[in-house]
Amino acid sequence: MQYPEAIGRLIESFTKLPGIGPKTAIRLAFHVLDMEEDDVLTFAKALVSAKRDIKYCTVCGHITDVDPCAICTDSHRDETVVCVVQDSRDVIAMEKMREYRGKYHVLHGAISPMEGIGPEDINVSSLLTRLQENEAISEVILATNPNIEGEATSMYLSRLLKPTGIRVTRLAHGLPVGGDLEYADEVTLSRAMEGRREL
Amino acid sequence: MQYPEAIGRLIESFTKLPGIGPKTAIRLAFHVLDMEEDDVLTFAKALVSAKRDIKYCTVCGHITDVDPCAICTDSHRDETVVCVVQDSRDVIAMEKMREYRGKYHVLHGAISPMEGIGPEDINVSSLLTRLQENEAISEVILATNPNIEGEATSMYLSRLLKPTGIRVTRLAHGLPVGGDLEYADEVTLSRAMEGRREL
Repeated sequence: MQYPEAIGRLIESFTKLPGIGPKTAIRLAFHVLDMEEDDVLTFAKALVSAKRDIKYCTVCGHITDVDPCAICTDSHRDETVVCVVQDSRDVIAMEKMREYRGKYHVLHGAISPMEGIGPEDINVSSLLTRLQENEAISEVILATNPNIEGEATSMYLSRLLKPTGIRVTRLAHGLPVGGDLEYADEVTLSRAMEGRREL
Repeated sequence: MQYPEAIGRLIESFTKLPGIGPKTAIRLAFHVLDMEEDDVLTFAKALVSAKRDIKYCTVCGHITDVDPCAICTDSHRDETVVCVVQDSRDVIAMEKMREYRGKYHVLHGAISPMEGIGPEDINVSSLLTRLQENEAISEVILATNPNIEGEATSMYLSRLLKPTGIRVTRLAHGLPVGGDLEYADEVTLSRAMEGRREL
C-alpha cells in the first residue's frame, strides 16, 4: 500500500526542495495534515504570491515587488557608490549592518569555469550599462564571496572596470571578529597580516 | 530594509514547519523564486489538497482519501487480526514489510502522563466499539513504539482487552537485524535473552 494520492503528491513536492530528503518530506507532509486549514491556505498563497509577485529589479537585480526596487528609488541613499554582490541574500546581510548607505548591484551568481558559468551568464552587462549611463557613480565596491568563484569574479570585474577610471575596491579579508587566532586558517591569517593597519 | 512582503510571508510559513529554522526557511523561500511556476503551483495545490482531501478513516483512524480506507474495505485482508499502532506512518512501515495481511487501528498518540495524555485522548474508545461490533476479530497485536509511552499504552490496552477473551499479543523485543551485539543497550539485550527461542 502506498500513501493516499493527495499526501503522496505533497511529499513529492517537499522532496524537491533543497536539503529535504524523503524522511523529512514525509514528516513535513504529516505535519501539514495536523495544521489549521487557515495556516495551510496562507502557506499555499504565500508560495504562489512569492513566485508571481517577486521580480528582479531592472536596475540592480535585487528581488523586489515594485520595479525599480525600494533601494534604487530611495533618494536618501548615496548614489555615487555601488556595492556588487552575488545574491539578493547578500543585500539583506549588508543591510542588516545598517552602515552602508550606497546602492547595490546583484550579479545572481559568480564566474565559475568548473561549472561553465562565464561573465555572460551573470548580471555583468547591466552593471556596465549602469556605470555608463549614471556618471555620478564614482566607486564600485566588490563584495563577492571570499572563495574561489567570488575572487575570480572580483578579479574579472576589477580588470573590466579599472580602464573606466571608476574607483574599484574589495571588502577586506582578515580575522573574523569574535574568532580565535588559533583556529584561523593559513590563508585568512596571511591575508590578515597583509592587510594589517597602523594603530 | 526587510524582505519584500511576499517573500517575508513565505519565509514565515516555512519557519512554522518542524525542524526548519530561520536560515533554512530563507534558503527554501529563495529556492521557490528560482523554481518553475508550474512546480510552485503544483506544490501549493498539493498543500491545500492534502489538508482538504485527506481524512482519518472512521473505522481504523488511518489517513485516507476515501472513507472507510482502502485497507478496511479490502476483502482479501484477514479481518480476524487487528494491529494497533500509534501513527499512520507506522501503518506505512508495516505495509512495507509486505507480510502482514490483517487490519490496523491507529491510536494517533500514546498514553503519556508526563504530557497529560490519557487513554481518553487517543483513539481507544473506537477500538473497543470495533471489537464489540465485529466478533470476527480474534487477535489484537500491540505494535506501539518500544519506548516508555508506547509500553505504557500497550500495558493499558492489554489489561483493558484481556477480560474480553480476545488474544492480545505484543511485537517481540530483541536485537535489531544487522545490528552489533557489542553496541546493543542493556535493556534490549536483556529482552533478547528473555525472548530467546529454541533452534
